[in-house]
Formats: sequence, structure tokens, C-alpha cells
Amino acid sequence: MSSEEERPDPEVRTAFAGRRLRVEEQIWPGGVRREVARVPGACAAVVLTGDDHVVLVEQRREAIGRALLEAPAGIYDVDGEGPEDAIRREIREETGYRAGRVDRLGRFYSSPGFTDEAIDLLLSWAEPGGPPEEPGIAVVVRPFAEVVASVEANEIEDAHTALAVLLAARRLASEDGP
Amino acid sequence: MSSEEERPDPEVRTAFAGRRLRVEEQIWPGGVRREVARVPGACAAVVLTGDDHVVLVEQRREAIGRALLEAPAGIYDVDGEGPEDAIRREIREETGYRAGRVDRLGRFYSSPGFTDEAIDLLLSWAEPGGPPEEPGIAVVVRPFAEVVASVEANEIEDAHTALAVLLAARRLASEDGP
Repeated sequence: MSSEEERPDPEVRTAFAGRRLRVEEQIWPGGVRREVARVPGACAAVVLTGDDHVVLVEQRREAIGRALLEAPAGIYDVDGEGPEDAIRREIREETGYRAGRVDRLGRFYSSPGFTDEAIDLLLSWAEPGGPPEEPGIAVVVRPFAEVVASVEANEIEDAHTALAVLLAARRLASEDGP
Repeated sequence: MSSEEERPDPEVRTAFAGRRLRVEEQIWPGGVRREVARVPGACAAVVLTGDDHVVLVEQRREAIGRALLEAPAGIYDVDGEGPEDAIRREIREETGYRAGRVDRLGRFYSSPGFTDEAIDLLLSWAEPGGPPEEPGIAVVVRPFAEVVASVEANEIEDAHTALAVLLAARRLASEDGP
């Protein structure tokens, strides 16, 4: 296809470098400019309890000015830590739960038209293990079927949480057999 | 919950203003800084044909340096145009198909930890109507069941495309009845 043809490289400059976000400006031969928001990768997990509930977190998101209900998630900021260990740490810090088995659901780009952010989606099984460690986060535990319905009704509005829940529903249905 | 308590407003400054992307720096009392990538809203659609195929587009994404298979999508850049009209225009331009019925699947935030981007996900029915108008985009038409399997296998890597496909699968299954 034409988009895979050999092409010249753009001139690249860093237009903004912040704490977590870096904006790269690409200037292509012919003058077309493109902005890319570069951020670290992250992980998020559907956290299942022994009695088919899902452990979610509600927290205020300053980017949109209100709280959202989301899967526990975190940025990769510990060197050498893989997705499974990173999500176990995040689940413990954000919810107090202790995760055992962790399965991978996939790695998805958040919005590749403007950012390189990719998020590993995971499915984990966990047990209560103590109080959460992070302030400003409310732990919300709901039946799995109710969370799936919340995704379909768009009451869950975070794309990665919604995708992880629907992927988990298909994975669990296929493991249960027909 | 604590995150919904009354709180002071941050000092806000624009740290970068580009063609499409604006970076806002929030400086909170106490000195905490947060960066928000502000971008326009967008829409994306699962485009169904009369014989249960899905019309997808493959295009190179410079943010990640390779091509991805995605649902037709577009940024809201025409004043006063709603999601249904915007996606009909995008489908026509990117694939050449003409969309009739358009249903809403939901509006989801791409990654609310750092950006305000929200994408309306739609389900549409369309017929071939001529050649696509945009260069650098390959049109890919596949059976719906195969596309669902591609999402589960993580061969589709764009989060919004994957979510829209799984939402469409559930919507279509519930309309077909038990």
C-alpha cells in the first residue's frame, strides 16, 4: 500500500518537554507539520475477586475536570518492571488488594493519530489485603455483570477500562466453554 | 469521596500551542504541576456492509512509526456538524462508502490521565459508493466475525477501534435476541 512506501524522514524537534509529556514536532519535506505527544507506556487491569466482583477506582481526572470510574492503572516508571509486576504494585497501592494470577489481554494504542501512548490491558485475580495507600482514590467493588452493563450503557467512560472489561468478558466466556 | 471535595483552582498556562495539540500546564497550590494535552474531539465508526463485513482503513501513524488497521475516524473540524454527519463524511472520504443508518455506541475518553480527548464511537451501515478520496489510506473489508477475532488476538491495536468492534458485537447480539 502507498502508506508503506519508502519515504523520507521528517525533521524532528522537541517543542515541549514536561514532567511526563513531551511534544515532538515533525516537519516533513514539503512543509507538512505533525505534532506527536510522547508519554510513557502504562498498564491497566480488570481486577476480579473470588466471588465475581470487579475492583474499580474512582478518581478525579484534572484533564476533564471531574471524577471517572476506571480500572486500576499505572504508568511504567520503575526500570525493569514488567506489566505483571507493575500492575500488581498498582493494584496494591490503589485498592489494597493483593493480585495473584495475571493474564494479558493485549496492548493497545490510546489514540495513535496524535500520541504514542500504548497501554497493556491485563486480567487479574485478587484478594483484599489491607487499606489502599493512595489518597484521592475511592475503591468501588461491583458485580462483574453489572460492570459489563455499565460499559454498554457508557456509564464507564474511560476507553481502556471499557475495552479491558469487554475483552475480559469474552476471555472468561471462552474459558467457561460453550 | 475525597476527590470530589471543594478544592482550589490551579494556575493554568499554555505551555505549547500547535496546529491541533495544545499543552496546558496546571500549577496547583503547594506546587504540584500537571500537564494536560488538549485536542479536539473525534468520532470513529464500525462500518457494516449488507453482507456482514466491516470496512476498515489501514494507514501509517507517524506517532508510532508504522501502519495500523483502524475504524474510519475523524476529528471534529467542521462547525456545527454532529457525530452522525461527521462520521458519514469521514466514511465517504476515507473509504468511498455511503453510510445510511448511524447508531451511537458511546463517548469514551482516550486516556484521561493526560488528555481531554473524547471519541464518539458509532455503528453504521453503508454501501459502496465510489473510490476513496484520501491518499495514503488502504481500504480493508473483512467479515465481522473475523474482525472480532482480530480484536481478541490483539491484531487490531487501536483502542477505540477494538472497543467499538466489541460494543458493536454486543449491540448486534442483543438486537438479534436470545
